[in-house]
Amino acid sequence: MDNKKEPLILITNDDGVFAKGIRSLIDVARKLGKVVVIAPDKPQSGMGHAITINNLLRLYPYHQFEGIEAYTCSGTPVDCVKLGIYDVLHQKPDLLLSGINHGENTSTNVLYSGTMSAAVEGAIEGIPSIGFSLADFDPDADFAGAQMIAERLIKTALEKDWPKNICLNVNVPKMPREFIKGIKVCRAARAFWEDRFEKRKDQFDRPYYWLTGEFVYQDLGEDTDLHALKSGYASIVPVQYDMTAYNSISELNTWKV
Amino acid sequence: MDNKKEPLILITNDDGVFAKGIRSLIDVARKLGKVVVIAPDKPQSGMGHAITINNLLRLYPYHQFEGIEAYTCSGTPVDCVKLGIYDVLHQKPDLLLSGINHGENTSTNVLYSGTMSAAVEGAIEGIPSIGFSLADFDPDADFAGAQMIAERLIKTALEKDWPKNICLNVNVPKMPREFIKGIKVCRAARAFWEDRFEKRKDQFDRPYYWLTGEFVYQDLGEDTDLHALKSGYASIVPVQYDMTAYNSISELNTWKV
Repeated sequence: MDNKKEPLILITNDDGVFAKGIRSLIDVARKLGKVVVIAPDKPQSGMGHAITINNLLRLYPYHQFEGIEAYTCSGTPVDCVKLGIYDVLHQKPDLLLSGINHGENTSTNVLYSGTMSAAVEGAIEGIPSIGFSLADFDPDADFAGAQMIAERLIKTALEKDWPKNICLNVNVPKMPREFIKGIKVCRAARAFWEDRFEKRKDQFDRPYYWLTGEFVYQDLGEDTDLHALKSGYASIVPVQYDMTAYNSISELNTWKV
Repeated sequence: MDNKKEPLILITNDDGVFAKGIRSLIDVARKLGKVVVIAPDKPQSGMGHAITINNLLRLYPYHQFEGIEAYTCSGTPVDCVKLGIYDVLHQKPDLLLSGINHGENTSTNVLYSGTMSAAVEGAIEGIPSIGFSLADFDPDADFAGAQMIAERLIKTALEKDWPKNICLNVNVPKMPREFIKGIKVCRAARAFWEDRFEKRKDQFDRPYYWLTGEFVYQDLGEDTDLHALKSGYASIVPVQYDMTAYNSISELNTWKV
């Protein structure tokens, strides 16, 4: 990158600006480019690709990252990306990073994940975008391994031509940095949440529910993100925003509705 | 269907249980099967695939649809589907319908749409699922054309083998029923929101923002959902929940991160 302008890197997340994960990512990225941060002012896990259209948005300067231009946003991770591009930077960054998420975002969790939805929004905008997640929900998780993976991938991403219309979903296993075996390019495993709702009663004896459940995983392929993580590798899944099931178009045409 | 059990049809939406669109869909579906409704207790447009994991959920019986078992849910459209399957029906319905949305959900809007995210959640659960949207935001829109399309499609869907791992995104143009030329199976157009934020000041002179913008559409293909709608056809796009960009895997493998 010596003979080029310093790359502009926009960073967001879904755990909120206070999370250890985003600070871990900023610490890596600031060595590789000019970083600007716009992150939610509260946890936004599970917000998926939600945007704020029935309420206002607040955006305030945030001074807790020394030497870094940063803002908190009252909205979702996707709101952060939109506000970042169109109202803070007034340009598209060279790279958009989201994370590092506290907890893995493998398989179909891409759809529920605010972290990954921010990266998908970046892809729609034509920006090279990467979402990072560590398979550890602990607020004080050890991000050293994820930082090592992030640094290698950000360096590579800034050098290479970015494939069109995709972003990357990177998951890092929960283990000491020196035990991580490497990085594997994968497909998303076929898996889903078998939901359970815990039914409780409030002080007026009215019922309420908490979403819980089990992640059911019957996909035994060795080319999946879940398999890579289990085997001690970080996984990279290329993610496209076009959800058209092209293979089903001809079948549906036989329906003659 | 004469020699089969009456099909069980779960209905939700994202405009809320009070919307004209969901009533229009119920009126069609009740002629074709046993309908159960679980819909948000307030508008949830733009909620995408959000789920409620940091707050409780409420579920209350709703008695405004005569002869129909119905509930309001305090959560998102995807929460409605999960609660519906796992806590109300205790089984998977034969068909999941979402809508009819007030406003179109073509192209990349599938990602932002609560209506379509409910259908995508159904697909993940292995349930034949269809999201319906009418290209008219008016709360008192004319749903006659959309009802005609919905009836034809629901009948066909109950007769045919459902393609694996997909749901359907159906959009109906804003026009009198008799002017709709037919139904076309399409791909999602490539388009995105060029966002604008309207900056205002509150009573304390602090800034706030409203998300607005323009839908930018440079895809001139004649096989897209946007083209079908413009030409007076309803569009059907098969939508898959696996977002892996399989075509990019080999390219990424050359990166040698």
